[in-house]
Amino acid sequence: MNSSQQAASTSFKVPDSSRLQLNEQGRLRHFLTTEGLSKDILIDIMDVAESFSSVSNQAVKKVPVLRGKTIVNLFFENSTRTRTTFELAAKRLSADVININVATSAASKGESVLDMIRNLEAMQVDMFVVRHGESGAAHFIAQHVAPHISVINAGDGRHAHPTQAMLDMFTIRRVKKDFAGLKVAIIGDILNSRVARSQIHALNTLGVQEVRVVAPKTLLPINTDSLGVHVYDDLQSGISGVDVVIMLRLQKERMSKALLPSEHEYFECFGLTQAKLAVAKADVMVMHPGPINRGVEMDAAVADGENSFILQQVTNGIAIRMAVMTLVLGHRAGEKA
Amino acid sequence: MNSSQQAASTSFKVPDSSRLQLNEQGRLRHFLTTEGLSKDILIDIMDVAESFSSVSNQAVKKVPVLRGKTIVNLFFENSTRTRTTFELAAKRLSADVININVATSAASKGESVLDMIRNLEAMQVDMFVVRHGESGAAHFIAQHVAPHISVINAGDGRHAHPTQAMLDMFTIRRVKKDFAGLKVAIIGDILNSRVARSQIHALNTLGVQEVRVVAPKTLLPINTDSLGVHVYDDLQSGISGVDVVIMLRLQKERMSKALLPSEHEYFECFGLTQAKLAVAKADVMVMHPGPINRGVEMDAAVADGENSFILQQVTNGIAIRMAVMTLVLGHRAGEKA
Amino acid sequence: MNSSQQAASTSFKVPDSSRLQLNEQGRLRHFLTTEGLSKDILIDIMDVAESFSSVSNQAVKKVPVLRGKTIVNLFFENSTRTRTTFELAAKRLSADVININVATSAASKGESVLDMIRNLEAMQVDMFVVRHGESGAAHFIAQHVAPHISVINAGDGRHAHPTQAMLDMFTIRRVKKDFAGLKVAIIGDILNSRVARSQIHALNTLGVQEVRVVAPKTLLPINTDSLGVHVYDDLQSGISGVDVVIMLRLQKERMSKALLPSEHEYFECFGLTQAKLAVAKADVMVMHPGPINRGVEMDAAVADGENSFILQQVTNGIAIRMAVMTLVLGHRAGEKA
Repeated sequence: MNSSQQAASTSFKVPDSSRLQLNEQGRLRHFLTTEGLSKDILIDIMDVAESFSSVSNQAVKKVPVLRGKTIVNLFFENSTRTRTTFELAAKRLSADVININVATSAASKGESVLDMIRNLEAMQVDMFVVRHGESGAAHFIAQHVAPHISVINAGDGRHAHPTQAMLDMFTIRRVKKDFAGLKVAIIGDILNSRVARSQIHALNTLGVQEVRVVAPKTLLPINTDSLGVHVYDDLQSGISGVDVVIMLRLQKERMSKALLPSEHEYFECFGLTQAKLAVAKADVMVMHPGPINRGVEMDAAVADGENSFILQQVTNGIAIRMAVMTLVLGHRAGEKA
Repeated sequence: MNSSQQAASTSFKVPDSSRLQLNEQGRLRHFLTTEGLSKDILIDIMDVAESFSSVSNQAVKKVPVLRGKTIVNLFFENSTRTRTTFELAAKRLSADVININVATSAASKGESVLDMIRNLEAMQVDMFVVRHGESGAAHFIAQHVAPHISVINAGDGRHAHPTQAMLDMFTIRRVKKDFAGLKVAIIGDILNSRVARSQIHALNTLGVQEVRVVAPKTLLPINTDSLGVHVYDDLQSGISGVDVVIMLRLQKERMSKALLPSEHEYFECFGLTQAKLAVAKADVMVMHPGPINRGVEMDAAVADGENSFILQQVTNGIAIRMAVMTLVLGHRAGEKA
Repeated sequence: MNSSQQAASTSFKVPDSSRLQLNEQGRLRHFLTTEGLSKDILIDIMDVAESFSSVSNQAVKKVPVLRGKTIVNLFFENSTRTRTTFELAAKRLSADVININVATSAASKGESVLDMIRNLEAMQVDMFVVRHGESGAAHFIAQHVAPHISVINAGDGRHAHPTQAMLDMFTIRRVKKDFAGLKVAIIGDILNSRVARSQIHALNTLGVQEVRVVAPKTLLPINTDSLGVHVYDDLQSGISGVDVVIMLRLQKERMSKALLPSEHEYFECFGLTQAKLAVAKADVMVMHPGPINRGVEMDAAVADGENSFILQQVTNGIAIRMAVMTLVLGHRAGEKA
């Protein structure tokens, strides 16, 4: 275990089980991780998202599904981009949204996370959308909230980013129709990526033929055997014959400089170009969670090329977040009217 | 008068009279302080709050009482917590809310407070919820706003925090039913506390039997005689036989270090424990405006114990703010439909 | 060309034509500049604003014109004041509003402006209200957005601030009824003022008799001949016999100190007083985009005097922004019901 891998240890304990996410009827109550959720649940999320996809195209982009519900965006880590997608999804469901950026508020008064949660609960809010720099934070909050409150994990440390993974699955399904038979390669900083972890669990549960991770050895986690993935440290072998290439964002701020000589060298080895992409299937999908570092993870021709589904991912992200919000609050798209 | 007491002098002049708060029909137009308001007005606020208490429990937590009204949260002093309660209350009344954090905006362009108020007025807003570090700021604004605009004081310097006081009164009434016969002790930094000042006026107006303040001598105001309170500098005597204990938050940032040797020593003398609480009545209510410094004002066993009503205070705070907003804009709960 | 005038060169290229603003039917699609727009379009904006003027006076200040539309306030330059007017206008039209302050968000992750726009587009938003420190930024975004999206320029560098100009025109029209025959003087830092540039184009298009600019020589642009204005470097001559005096805000932060000896000296030469105003027509209108530096651009007696229409400008600004938002999204006030 190198020093970076040691640094991946977390402050909050992440429970092994995903039982926490389901209620007594086996339906989704929180959405914290894709790990351990059944194929039926993942398909249900995508089916509900499909029913919401048309809402954002309507002249009046609003359905009354969550009218009078209060959703709190509780962001301990700043991300205007992610916050905006959840805020938009909530508003299109007619919910009231409260944005709380914790770095600038109560934490500075010494209020603990739990006291903050207790207080917001007492204001009878319905949902926390939690973003946190520490792995396990959303689980921790979900373990402690009142029975009527749902928690959605909007990214916790290196652990999970399940709505990102589900919008990726949804984007793949809308194009490829079926997961069986697909080969999917995830490229980049696997070690530090909560996105990769959530994608790997979802892809395996949905029954793809093969999940590959492609990264320099210093950016691979140590437990790849248990993840059910094939490991490559060479890009060309890794994407050879694949149906889907998912590029990860290079989280420069998370990595010690020693692990990566330079952006330029990274691009030479692991950056995607049209030329390199030729070894994948002709109709390969290229995906990226954004924002892209053009010239680092891929060049502009790939990002804006015909194989790119990067903007469709963003569009689908709104529908997925609307679906998850609706499902955890016990509503179904069919109940809209 | 010691140096800290001298420091309590204010930049804005606070008017002696509370006449400013009432319109010509004697109904509430602004809500700036509990001082000088009649018992009928205070009871009316609690009665309207009672009618709103169920709203936050409904599946659709929204009533159309203030639909199409514009409420501006004008915060010259940052408080995510207080801003959130007002924002939630306003949204549950269907009002539009604009949050303005003045420290980061117009003041940096040299715009005076009055010019800012005039401008927002010209945008035909209906209400200012004002938080300010200087005593008298909300009064100053109320004295200058146009006739159709109401001002709610969300805390001004060391002067007043009337919605906090009223949610405390409401919490007491919901448990004890009647104020007559109650003995209430307020513990902590009385000198610097706008909360304590507003509570004392409300408790006396509502006719409790006895209001006690308990503090080290350095944290007592000099005019305790005129406040109508009994003064104790010993915690055990102060809470002996009381029905309600209200702990104040230790505002570390407001106090010169010289007045208080250490947090540990403060807790030893004035921190509440289950053992110390034994001298109060068996069904004593323990309250705190939050956020709690556990281990300073009280230990966790008290904060989370069966005598604690701290989270009920938060819940009741939403109903009280809905009530005050509704009353100052001239609506009654009965007009909701 | 002096050094300050050289500094006025811009980072984004501003297109010569205003064709970009109109759709194939010649109706307003974006609102980027008053330059090149026809008199009919400008009058249409004011007519629609007139129909919205009553909305903000109603008990329920809301019309459902833009219900279910998503409007993004995309502010690359902080301005709580301007952001508030657009947010209020959007909410009174029942739109959903997302505020994005770019300085504190995605730009810090290296996301380019265009990637940010593409992402927000993919979330199916309907309108960007853009504020940017660089001239041409709103044009640049308008050139690149998807067909269904409209862009409103809320101020770009030294280039244009068209909603400010139109609220000024609207304020003049509501008082003077007709533009023909009017003499209008604009006083202050013409060189650096996007407001002045937009006003000059609008005034000339609307057919005023004479537009004058009054400034020290160092604060005049070099192309005054092409602007269609009469130039004065003496205040008294400049406002002699005029119907309208528009004072510009002294943007201290934009000017090199060398161009302006002191605020005091500026006030002596170009600050407006009641005495100096005596040479204008008796019913002269005094206007200012705010916030005023009292004692610099004008003294308080003028700002608060009977000739001042400064607060009416603010009120009219809400109606103008409601009108522009409605027009660019293809709705007419007549379709409200």
